[in-house]
Amino acid sequence: MGTYPSSAIQDLYPDDFAHCFGCGRYNALGHQLKSYAEGDEVVARFMPGPQHVSVPGFVYGGLLASLVDCHAMATAAAADLAAAGVQTEVTAPRYVTAALRVDYLKPTPIGVELEIRSRVKEASEKKKVVSFSVAAHGTVTVTGEAVAVRMPKTMEQLLKT
Amino acid sequence: MGTYPSSAIQDLYPDDFAHCFGCGRYNALGHQLKSYAEGDEVVARFMPGPQHVSVPGFVYGGLLASLVDCHAMATAAAADLAAAGVQTEVTAPRYVTAALRVDYLKPTPIGVELEIRSRVKEASEKKKVVSFSVAAHGTVTVTGEAVAVRMPKTMEQLLKT
Repeated sequence: MGTYPSSAIQDLYPDDFAHCFGCGRYNALGHQLKSYAEGDEVVARFMPGPQHVSVPGFVYGGLLASLVDCHAMATAAAADLAAAGVQTEVTAPRYVTAALRVDYLKPTPIGVELEIRSRVKEASEKKKVVSFSVAAHGTVTVTGEAVAVRMPKTMEQLLKT
Repeated sequence: MGTYPSSAIQDLYPDDFAHCFGCGRYNALGHQLKSYAEGDEVVARFMPGPQHVSVPGFVYGGLLASLVDCHAMATAAAADLAAAGVQTEVTAPRYVTAALRVDYLKPTPIGVELEIRSRVKEASEKKKVVSFSVAAHGTVTVTGEAVAVRMPKTMEQLLKT
């Protein structure tokens, strides 16, 4: 299979849906997370800033929840691209989070680049269940699962009004 | 019962534990969430900024996860203060998140002050299960549950080294 698409998934979102605080390329104040397909996994790397602290020395859990949320939506979109088998880069579908579960196994040290890995566990046309982990220095500190749904038509309509 | 403590719970955290990006009074770049006891609930109000967008018109789910996370930890701490029955304000214990589950029932509109409400569902000395909701304009858009644990001694020791 190799790596398809080679761009960050978030860079394939339509312009109208690329302002997300977590991963939008047009949100100058946001995290601008970038997630890449790697075989049957999707991988992102992120360096928290010193402000992203919880208690001294450790990363804020809310940031971790934010990163895995955006990463999981990108993972769902990547699965659709891979299933379609399109080998030229196209627009990625936009998923939204229906549910997010994050298990904080141990404190995540700050000042270390984090590696987020995910894969699709269950897939239907409109819904994906994505499992993920976050590791620091090769040690997994967070695991969890997200339920991603294709953006509902009602929401798209709201966006056009 | 009334309202005890009358301060924001986060303002009662020890100085060393008041740098959290979500709720630390000393984190100038953070959200500085303030949660208040109200009877047997704990309530916080928060106005997302325009940068906290997901898709246009709606609040970023990662911000919502961040707010409920900090709010749930404050709820756990408030329960200990109430149980101790101390009627002068004291230092609040610091809880950390073991697990967080967020159900996004519907999109949360941006540009509206959000109301977060929570209560303790299950309590032991070292662990609390907290349920919460987020409402915009009186409509609940998010519900969920967090497992809060008293900060482990190993973590406190790490902080002292």
